[in-house]
Amino acid sequence: MIGIFDSGIGGLRVVKEVFEKLPLYKVIYFGDLARSPYGTKSPKTVIRFSRQIAHFLVQKGAQVIIIACNTASAHAAEVLKKEFSIPIFEVITPAVKKAIQKTKNQKVGLIGTWSTIESQAYQKSFKRFDPEGKIQLFAQACPLFVPLVEENFIHRPETKKIARYYLRALKHQGIDTLILGCTHYSLLKKVIQNVMGKKVELIDSTEVVDDILAEMAQKNLLSQLNKGFGHQFYFSDVPRNLEVLSQRFLGQKLSHLKQIDLDEVL
Amino acid sequence: MIGIFDSGIGGLRVVKEVFEKLPLYKVIYFGDLARSPYGTKSPKTVIRFSRQIAHFLVQKGAQVIIIACNTASAHAAEVLKKEFSIPIFEVITPAVKKAIQKTKNQKVGLIGTWSTIESQAYQKSFKRFDPEGKIQLFAQACPLFVPLVEENFIHRPETKKIARYYLRALKHQGIDTLILGCTHYSLLKKVIQNVMGKKVELIDSTEVVDDILAEMAQKNLLSQLNKGFGHQFYFSDVPRNLEVLSQRFLGQKLSHLKQIDLDEVL
Repeated sequence: MIGIFDSGIGGLRVVKEVFEKLPLYKVIYFGDLARSPYGTKSPKTVIRFSRQIAHFLVQKGAQVIIIACNTASAHAAEVLKKEFSIPIFEVITPAVKKAIQKTKNQKVGLIGTWSTIESQAYQKSFKRFDPEGKIQLFAQACPLFVPLVEENFIHRPETKKIARYYLRALKHQGIDTLILGCTHYSLLKKVIQNVMGKKVELIDSTEVVDDILAEMAQKNLLSQLNKGFGHQFYFSDVPRNLEVLSQRFLGQKLSHLKQIDLDEVL
Repeated sequence: MIGIFDSGIGGLRVVKEVFEKLPLYKVIYFGDLARSPYGTKSPKTVIRFSRQIAHFLVQKGAQVIIIACNTASAHAAEVLKKEFSIPIFEVITPAVKKAIQKTKNQKVGLIGTWSTIESQAYQKSFKRFDPEGKIQLFAQACPLFVPLVEENFIHRPETKKIARYYLRALKHQGIDTLILGCTHYSLLKKVIQNVMGKKVELIDSTEVVDDILAEMAQKNLLSQLNKGFGHQFYFSDVPRNLEVLSQRFLGQKLSHLKQIDLDEVL
């Protein structure tokens, strides 16, 4: 089974892509809604939560894990890769590789949560894949984007105003490529594109899944995974708006939804 | 010691009031920043978290507990009152009593998180203190107010626009009293007052503390509490902006700050 986890429902965008690209494989998802969002929390806490979730997914039979959450990818990917024997994938590396491919003027923007931006994880990844430092990276935290998406303010004028405010400096820098470093932001793609102009290429988590799956295929991992039906969706909390939100992110109803308290399991 | 807890830093408004009114008493505070906010979470989860925190505060020597968080008050106050032998105070009852005293046209508004509004806790409290149902209560969830305050968007025009959007219906109803049913909202008092007009009286958590302390005095609880210096501030996470935020809410620097993982303690 392919284990996928996120701080909440944002990772369902990644699940959606996996469903489309690998319809025969089973997915086990964990959304940490009891403790979401992660984007405002410290590295130590994000690592602790991610470790708990990875243990849970492995217990439940995950054979690979995709960390769909950017903040968890930023803080916990290296730790989990060391501590777990199964392959761990994260969403930062493929986004950085794609940005390096796509930029023409060598000016790339990055937006994400506070915790992601301050982790310097993207910055470090750029240093790895662009060791000569040809590319300039401009980072901007956009903390209100997550609650705006969750409160369905996607099409409201206030959101456009806030987007203009956040993106002003990036626009001024003349970037031609912008990494949406948070799964929630892909729902604001139109607003962001509108503010940044048509010439700026947006890279979001949806595209990144392709590369993760290609890497899985390349490493011969897919042949080792169990096929079959019966996806499983676990959440640490089931709040009032889970159904509406999951529909918004996944594009379909959640089946086999279960609530689980990680404190009690582990 | 007076135990005070909140989902995060909002309850520091209550601590501030206690410091001013009862400068000789020791306070022990717990802010659940690793799992905040509570306002988007289910009743079951909010009760579970509140119970853990109350156990922790009692272990540390709390002789009374004030639940500073409206969402926790709404879902967990009754449960905690049954399960714990020490006196438990919450912020809803005094706000309701005050609103009943203050309204002249018998039209009261309530704003809060989704979880607080949907709990019907305020509505039930009104039924108790206004059994004849003379007062009409109009409730409105304002979920974006919490992140707007935490991101320091207090004075930005977007916040005023969002406030106008949320408060439109309440204004239309002609309420003369508005309960700010979330500790964060007291930082938006000016914006809210501005949108609602001068004639609408706002009731916020700060005022409510007076009544809780008066009730404590009346029940002879204050004489039984240990006096002395050495307040203690516990948080389940210490994120980057804790210092700035606590300054904003408490009006002073936090002393004796400790991070604690509740999972490990309990």
